[in-house]
Amino acid sequence: MKQVVAGIDIGGTNTVFGLTDREGAILASGSLKTAKYEDGEVFIQDLVKAISNGLTDDMKLVGIGIGCPNANHYTGTMENAPNLKIKGVIPFVKRFEEIFSVPTVLTNDANAAAIGEMVFGGAKGLKDFFMITLGTGVGSGFVANGELVYGHDSFAGELGHTIVLLDGRMCGCGRKGCLETYTSASGIAKTFIELTEKYTGKKLENTNSYEVMLEAEKGNPIAIETFDFTAKILGLALANAVCITSPSHIFLFGGPVKAGRFLLDPLKKYMEDYMLFVYKNKVDVQVSELLDRNAAILGAAALGWQRI
Amino acid sequence: MKQVVAGIDIGGTNTVFGLTDREGAILASGSLKTAKYEDGEVFIQDLVKAISNGLTDDMKLVGIGIGCPNANHYTGTMENAPNLKIKGVIPFVKRFEEIFSVPTVLTNDANAAAIGEMVFGGAKGLKDFFMITLGTGVGSGFVANGELVYGHDSFAGELGHTIVLLDGRMCGCGRKGCLETYTSASGIAKTFIELTEKYTGKKLENTNSYEVMLEAEKGNPIAIETFDFTAKILGLALANAVCITSPSHIFLFGGPVKAGRFLLDPLKKYMEDYMLFVYKNKVDVQVSELLDRNAAILGAAALGWQRI
Repeated sequence: MKQVVAGIDIGGTNTVFGLTDREGAILASGSLKTAKYEDGEVFIQDLVKAISNGLTDDMKLVGIGIGCPNANHYTGTMENAPNLKIKGVIPFVKRFEEIFSVPTVLTNDANAAAIGEMVFGGAKGLKDFFMITLGTGVGSGFVANGELVYGHDSFAGELGHTIVLLDGRMCGCGRKGCLETYTSASGIAKTFIELTEKYTGKKLENTNSYEVMLEAEKGNPIAIETFDFTAKILGLALANAVCITSPSHIFLFGGPVKAGRFLLDPLKKYMEDYMLFVYKNKVDVQVSELLDRNAAILGAAALGWQRI
Repeated sequence: MKQVVAGIDIGGTNTVFGLTDREGAILASGSLKTAKYEDGEVFIQDLVKAISNGLTDDMKLVGIGIGCPNANHYTGTMENAPNLKIKGVIPFVKRFEEIFSVPTVLTNDANAAAIGEMVFGGAKGLKDFFMITLGTGVGSGFVANGELVYGHDSFAGELGHTIVLLDGRMCGCGRKGCLETYTSASGIAKTFIELTEKYTGKKLENTNSYEVMLEAEKGNPIAIETFDFTAKILGLALANAVCITSPSHIFLFGGPVKAGRFLLDPLKKYMEDYMLFVYKNKVDVQVSELLDRNAAILGAAALGWQRI
């Protein structure tokens, strides 16, 4: 019998899961349309069926890890996630432990990504690092003294909502100048639109960070400046975060990271410029080793493996 | 025989020490003029003599804690402290353990203050909090999951050198806009001088944060605005730090904290304003319970008691 842990990633549109072995190989996987569900218990029942169907006779389920929005790690519940149709407080951990009788752990997706990096990726053996995920939002997971920093209420690690420019861009959270407004995928697109108007007078209707990357690769100086500005703001935020936890490594994850040298080269330069002298040239900034793997599933699965 | 731990605080001008019991009572104390010494070993020998003189027949020394500048917690050494005449790398932990044969721990003074609060002050039993010390500089010590966050190199916790205003005031560290330039004692004095010139045209030669506090108590609106501005910048920095570690409590220490309501009332207001909604009204900001006690000695001693 092969021991497996189910890694479940609950997103606003889709939920994906995989049955993983201890080395991070995904032996079976599946998905559900989260957006179809309004009732938490119905969603849980369908997810249980899908996972059970994936389990073959030679597999023994030994744990479950769940990454989801608005996760309360301490209570094992998803709490009033604004981007999901499933409303209320959903007791995932309690229900999965009742149904499968295996240890179940839940956290938010950026924390799961950090644990995934620690268990299956480039952070193996590291005690002090953090992970930053650039996507629709900007998430982060901090590890200090070898443990994930959850904070007193399990909501630690919101680097995306540190205010980097006082009275800066309006953020979806209702405040101004959050890191997320500049360095999320849509923040990058917004910078490109603003700079295009500034330099050419042309008002772009719409774009996205992938298109900005393609423009940069074609040599468009406005796209290159967009990534330079993004790198400047992110470099400042990383340098400030380093002051608090002094990590040996920072891992970057998410679509915009694929902009490669357009983002990473200026990022390292700005981060070093903004860093207090005691930290200079000591922090290793790396792209997540899980970037092109099933990071969401592996991160969630890593939670489960870590618990066992 | 009463068990005692020696708490030693090494400062640029003076070094103070106390022999403490487990409840934080100081049974004997003494001091040396640090500024008199250039040779680390001579300093250690004199400190050993002074501590030995303080030990009476009914005391048993069971540990030593040391707070000092440029402390490397992992190696137990003070490394090239710029404000001390004692140069080089001083192996305090190694030497004290050789001489007294008791466990010895060393860290920087803000970290020692955080541990002091945890062992003897208002942070007893707390797992997630941080301490910020406002003085000549601005120091901080972060506790997450019940452990001090040292970082990979033991230099974590420099909240005073997070950049709060991009291209802001020049800092002694060579960068611009550090929290310390606004909220240290001299930063507060500088704000008062700037605002006085702005409103009255008068160039003050000099002042200090204590005088600004006296002015505020007399109702001087410029002094009151000075503390309001200080509170705004500090509130922003605290709100950003909360995003990273989500503490249940923040403790404030140092001379400027004695400005009381002039600083604390606007500080709480700004911090809440700048805080992400998930943290609002959940973080308890308190004045350190050690503010009017021998915090430097107790912080260092707490390190020793914690180790035992």
